[in-house]
Amino acid sequence: MNRKRIFHTVGQLLLTEAILLLLPIAVSLIYGEKTAALSLLATLGAAAALGGLLIFLCRKRERVIYAREGFLIVAFGWLSLSLVGALPFVISGEIPNFVDALFETVSGFTTTGASILKNVEAMSKGLLFWRSFTHWIGGMGILVFVMAVLPSAGADRSIHIMRAEMPGPIVGKLVPRARETAKILYLIYLGMTALQIVLLTAGGMSFYESCVHAFGTAGTGGFGVRADSIASYSPYLQWVITVFMLLFGVNFNLYYLFLIRKFRAALKSTELWTYLGIFFVSAAVIAADVFPRYESFGEALRHAAFQTSSVMTTTGYSTADFDLWPTLSKTILVFLMFVGACAGSTGGGLKVSRVVILFKRVRAEVKRLLHPRSVSGVKFEGRTVDDATLGGVSTYFVLFIAVFIGVLLTISVFDDFDFETNFTAAAACFNNIGPGLGAVGPAANYAGYGAVSKIVLSFAMLFGRLEIWPLLLAFSPTLWRKK
Amino acid sequence: MNRKRIFHTVGQLLLTEAILLLLPIAVSLIYGEKTAALSLLATLGAAAALGGLLIFLCRKRERVIYAREGFLIVAFGWLSLSLVGALPFVISGEIPNFVDALFETVSGFTTTGASILKNVEAMSKGLLFWRSFTHWIGGMGILVFVMAVLPSAGADRSIHIMRAEMPGPIVGKLVPRARETAKILYLIYLGMTALQIVLLTAGGMSFYESCVHAFGTAGTGGFGVRADSIASYSPYLQWVITVFMLLFGVNFNLYYLFLIRKFRAALKSTELWTYLGIFFVSAAVIAADVFPRYESFGEALRHAAFQTSSVMTTTGYSTADFDLWPTLSKTILVFLMFVGACAGSTGGGLKVSRVVILFKRVRAEVKRLLHPRSVSGVKFEGRTVDDATLGGVSTYFVLFIAVFIGVLLTISVFDDFDFETNFTAAAACFNNIGPGLGAVGPAANYAGYGAVSKIVLSFAMLFGRLEIWPLLLAFSPTLWRKK
Repeated sequence: MNRKRIFHTVGQLLLTEAILLLLPIAVSLIYGEKTAALSLLATLGAAAALGGLLIFLCRKRERVIYAREGFLIVAFGWLSLSLVGALPFVISGEIPNFVDALFETVSGFTTTGASILKNVEAMSKGLLFWRSFTHWIGGMGILVFVMAVLPSAGADRSIHIMRAEMPGPIVGKLVPRARETAKILYLIYLGMTALQIVLLTAGGMSFYESCVHAFGTAGTGGFGVRADSIASYSPYLQWVITVFMLLFGVNFNLYYLFLIRKFRAALKSTELWTYLGIFFVSAAVIAADVFPRYESFGEALRHAAFQTSSVMTTTGYSTADFDLWPTLSKTILVFLMFVGACAGSTGGGLKVSRVVILFKRVRAEVKRLLHPRSVSGVKFEGRTVDDATLGGVSTYFVLFIAVFIGVLLTISVFDDFDFETNFTAAAACFNNIGPGLGAVGPAANYAGYGAVSKIVLSFAMLFGRLEIWPLLLAFSPTLWRKK
Repeated sequence: MNRKRIFHTVGQLLLTEAILLLLPIAVSLIYGEKTAALSLLATLGAAAALGGLLIFLCRKRERVIYAREGFLIVAFGWLSLSLVGALPFVISGEIPNFVDALFETVSGFTTTGASILKNVEAMSKGLLFWRSFTHWIGGMGILVFVMAVLPSAGADRSIHIMRAEMPGPIVGKLVPRARETAKILYLIYLGMTALQIVLLTAGGMSFYESCVHAFGTAGTGGFGVRADSIASYSPYLQWVITVFMLLFGVNFNLYYLFLIRKFRAALKSTELWTYLGIFFVSAAVIAADVFPRYESFGEALRHAAFQTSSVMTTTGYSTADFDLWPTLSKTILVFLMFVGACAGSTGGGLKVSRVVILFKRVRAEVKRLLHPRSVSGVKFEGRTVDDATLGGVSTYFVLFIAVFIGVLLTISVFDDFDFETNFTAAAACFNNIGPGLGAVGPAANYAGYGAVSKIVLSFAMLFGRLEIWPLLLAFSPTLWRKK
């Protein structure tokens, strides 16, 4: 175990966070919010001091990073960023309780969007900006950002970190060097965010709100500035956000393929078509199901498409209180919570690629039972999936369900909400969506949960965002035992 | 495909059903219920005629049975038995609607115990006896019964049927010949049922009701004779049923080991201790959770133990309306619905052995990630689990979740109950428990569902009872395509 290497990188992450805090400070100053600006500045100082100290203490680090160091960097990195990122809310007094502030910040960095705020409209613009900015930072993974900016020590240096952080079963190595890959991914991310800001301002949204909502969409997060989320914006703006949520739920490798004009390769993706297929079928069924509640089919379709896109990409914005919808629509949305977005996107959940691989595996098993002597492998995206990946995906699925049940049982011990509320609270946090049903529905918030449940749900968000393994290994005693 | 062989065995099954119908006919005659006796007699005639016809038409059968024939015999066997078994309810007019009668009969044979009866106490004794008797028949599997009685054509003849029908990942071959195994299992089953009848009558329960409840317990079914299930019986009787439910949820192979005095081998079973551990921990937590609602801790413990035993073994009797319990207790019970009983028992659900194997696999994967060069296999019951079994268990888990989601979504399309009701209705039918929560709670019934949902839920019971594969393969077009 190379502990110095781990904490050195955590130090670099905190320094990066300090630099990123300059943006919300600027926003606070523009709007003349002194308290917010000062609390953000104090946090910047703390992040810089702590980061500098870690780098200084761990300066005699080794260069090499193995898989286990990668996992631990990710686990401690996200925890440290969240702990420090929660400070401005506490210092400013806008969220006086530290557990609440931590819940909100973890929810931001993990792109969940679950909130404990009872009155979001009373918050300062600077802190709301920071809140949504954490979505954008967490969306592509701040570690990928660090890799893209900091000098690399070797071609394989960062691939272990990326593997631990990039969602989905297979990390595509687009270009030989991980740094180059990260830069390209970030440029695409930046470009798409900018395009969305332009389209939102063109529809009459203020530049400030356009930025906040573009951050929330790009990171598939879901934090906004209004109590009714996106409901009070124009149909045009709602459609723009619907489309962009869907776009940010696509595997970013496909955009890279588009950039280098390999259109045919990009359009052959099984995951893409399955993802779009699930979206269109779900949105159509929900639209038909909720049609009697709206004035026109167009309106029903808009709300159905928005909510489907929002839940499936695990964003969590809403234009309608889907907790009041018929059970069929609610059940489909709960199901989509678990399916999630594409691998290699900013979304959460199990990921469409895993679902496809699991289904193909079952189909292969059926074939094998019917024709015991035939050989039937599982193919995905044109390649045969090897046994290690197949086993890994199955194991991940078991772990995924086990963690979900663990979270559900634990919050049930400490809070006596109804089954639907607890079930969807656990699902919405673990899959990084945000709103659930019942007492945590789109019109409600997580303020009613006790401190223990809030901490458990915060960990659920981290487990979901980091795909379980890094945190599980960080807490594994065998890792820390000396040989 | 050897179609004649399949339908020949289905014919034998129907003849067996005809013989078994003699018992409820006798009960009807004892209690002077003419209509019930006549409708049962008419069904006996229909079963005998249909069975005889099938045997006659398929008399030129081949002797050999392969796995696929085994699967199809099981699928068609259970469907035919249920379709014919539903007739007495319709003919007598006690359940005039055929879909309702079919639901009730499938619920009986699959040992589910979910009921559409609004007033069970208005039913005739003969038909209530038949209803509970289907639990007992379905519990050990009528096919195993057929094997135990009919002459065998070869040692391996029946093992394929048993593998398709006996629940759990591993079929233990106790003795070389499947027929001998079946006979021993049935003797144990019969002996334990008789013992329970004795203990129930000793506690003051009438002989008739003792039989009905022993059948319901032995098959882990749950059909009784009173609207409040077991609530109005004495604490002694409730404890007897608690213990026997638990006993019938144990792998029957262990009883065989006890019979031949291999005590140490039986007591070394990981599955047994995990099963008991889950039971004791769950019952203790639930007892503490519901304690404030009862007059003494003893009373709370009795209800907690009864409900835990009932749900975990997938029986479905109740002494308390657990739908009114706190969410923690309800959530634990929902979780236990999916875990189920031991493999090789009469219970349903995923089975404890599968849960153990899945967990051990995840632990092995954690080890492998931490120490990539170490070899870590999965051991279960003293033996290393081979890759084929590991893969099979994982695939089954995926299929299990997929079927559950399919059932949940389908019933949500046709009936607009709340999420909790639909979720637990699907879970309680698929895992063969019976009562769920909300509108299908212990104090309620399934009468509110529409015809389509009742048929879907009936299939869910069959899928759960037969562990998915046989029915899935029977509906697979590739099986029926001619080469």
